Amino acid sequence: MTTAAQKFKQSLAANQDAIEKGLDTLLSAEAMTGETERPASLLAAIRHGVLNGGKRFRPFLVLESTRLFDGNAEAALRVACALECIHCYSLIHDDLPAMDDDDLRRGRPTVHKAFDEATAILAGDSLLTLAFDIIADARTDLNADARLKLISALARAAGLGGMAGGQALDLQAEKTSPDEAGIVTLQAMKTGALIRFACETGAIIANTDQEDFSRLSRFGAVIGLAFQLADDLLDLKADEKTLGKATGKDTGRGKGTLVAMHGADWAEARLDALVKEAAELLAPYGEKAGILLEAARFVATREN
Amino acid sequence: MTTAAQKFKQSLAANQDAIEKGLDTLLSAEAMTGETERPASLLAAIRHGVLNGGKRFRPFLVLESTRLFDGNAEAALRVACALECIHCYSLIHDDLPAMDDDDLRRGRPTVHKAFDEATAILAGDSLLTLAFDIIADARTDLNADARLKLISALARAAGLGGMAGGQALDLQAEKTSPDEAGIVTLQAMKTGALIRFACETGAIIANTDQEDFSRLSRFGAVIGLAFQLADDLLDLKADEKTLGKATGKDTGRGKGTLVAMHGADWAEARLDALVKEAAELLAPYGEKAGILLEAARFVATREN
Repeated sequence: MTTAAQKFKQSLAANQDAIEKGLDTLLSAEAMTGETERPASLLAAIRHGVLNGGKRFRPFLVLESTRLFDGNAEAALRVACALECIHCYSLIHDDLPAMDDDDLRRGRPTVHKAFDEATAILAGDSLLTLAFDIIADARTDLNADARLKLISALARAAGLGGMAGGQALDLQAEKTSPDEAGIVTLQAMKTGALIRFACETGAIIANTDQEDFSRLSRFGAVIGLAFQLADDLLDLKADEKTLGKATGKDTGRGKGTLVAMHGADWAEARLDALVKEAAELLAPYGEKAGILLEAARFVATREN
Repeated sequence: MTTAAQKFKQSLAANQDAIEKGLDTLLSAEAMTGETERPASLLAAIRHGVLNGGKRFRPFLVLESTRLFDGNAEAALRVACALECIHCYSLIHDDLPAMDDDDLRRGRPTVHKAFDEATAILAGDSLLTLAFDIIADARTDLNADARLKLISALARAAGLGGMAGGQALDLQAEKTSPDEAGIVTLQAMKTGALIRFACETGAIIANTDQEDFSRLSRFGAVIGLAFQLADDLLDLKADEKTLGKATGKDTGRGKGTLVAMHGADWAEARLDALVKEAAELLAPYGEKAGILLEAARFVATREN
């Protein structure tokens, strides 16, 4: 492992710890002061769905993109936690019987299995709402304009024109296979939008000029594309391995993807090109962007 | 009907028209400009769940409380629409099989019946997200601090310590009957929080002093209490009428309420007292508050 790769792994682990602690605090009954009570069962369901040892890759991108511009680290931690609330709400709702119908996530029962469906729906709704509460709060110590920009950008990345819309396109794709442009749009919305938002946050938090914002925004899009391509490539390889003995859900996991359409060689060449583009985008920041660049390499070459 | 009551009915109808048009515009594909597409089926499900001829009582309170302080009417219309998006998302999710399992709302198929469950979940999620998008947007022509205050207050009214938390308490109440304090908390969160927020918005939009804000906030709490009491009173009367022939869902609709606990006479005396308190709270604004006061009377005495 190169020194840069080691630094990246260390940073990922350190950020993961910071996020875990941040989420634990934000999702504790004591932190939630207010006039009314927080129902214990709902809070327990939320904690079950969030504090599950996830890699916290999106929050990592928030923290590192903020470091790149020497932005407010404490504010970034709150924004990173808010983003993870959105990601986790989407997983809780995705796992529901009416959606992907999954019983397990990270080896533990999904929220609707550990609690019940109604509680899982409400836990997701509450987390989605809480994300905006966290950013709007004055404890996210940024000026009002920056907080509003973050709220707008997050709402767009998560909503009808972003993640939720992408999930709806995914439901449609099960009935009618999308063409190449359709797949690109679906993936950019479903998984790309939140990853791009994560990379943009640093520029918003540090109030950079438009050029820095655009570089980070494009870097986020590039990482999102690499993330999805690598995922689809892993699925294709898994499908090839299990060919003939695949059953149920595993069958055709790699279908309806650009990788299934163009093949593994094309995907690997495309991933190389994306890592090169990431390097060009981050070039002006020199060594300071080393960890982010390594993150792009990691995403493009991961094997699980 | 008194002149005041007529004015109230006219205002309710006029505001309903304005909200219907506002929502229709905000939920049209053309209004949703952006880099990505809005999936047609998801947008159709959202429109089905929102543009259903509701009374728009919460938005009415936003518009009238803003008029009381001569606040920005266009901004108030956007805030009112955002609030209605939250209310409608909660109805879409409430109607799901895992929650209340309702097939009809206002005589039309519920969203999961007209579309499917997955689409209904995503439609609710998208509407919830869109509410914050609408308020954060610069087209909601208020200064950044006011927009942030509205976002914070809405998130708290809708989330874990508000509406969603109240729904979780309601689920618990089906298993273990809450005591009187428990019922008060449940109702204040489940239905009270959004109504109170609606009344507070005028003070936030017009940037009033703390005293005006407190008056409107308490007025909102009073209207919320009256709304719930009147509802429970109607249920009690309906239960009495259908006693012996009630089946399934209708049985005991009035159970677990303050009205069931203390009786109809107590409820009517309490409603009178709430209307008196509303009048005292609005007294400093004289005739200007006539429509809001009439709204309190209407809520307390409605017969359906």
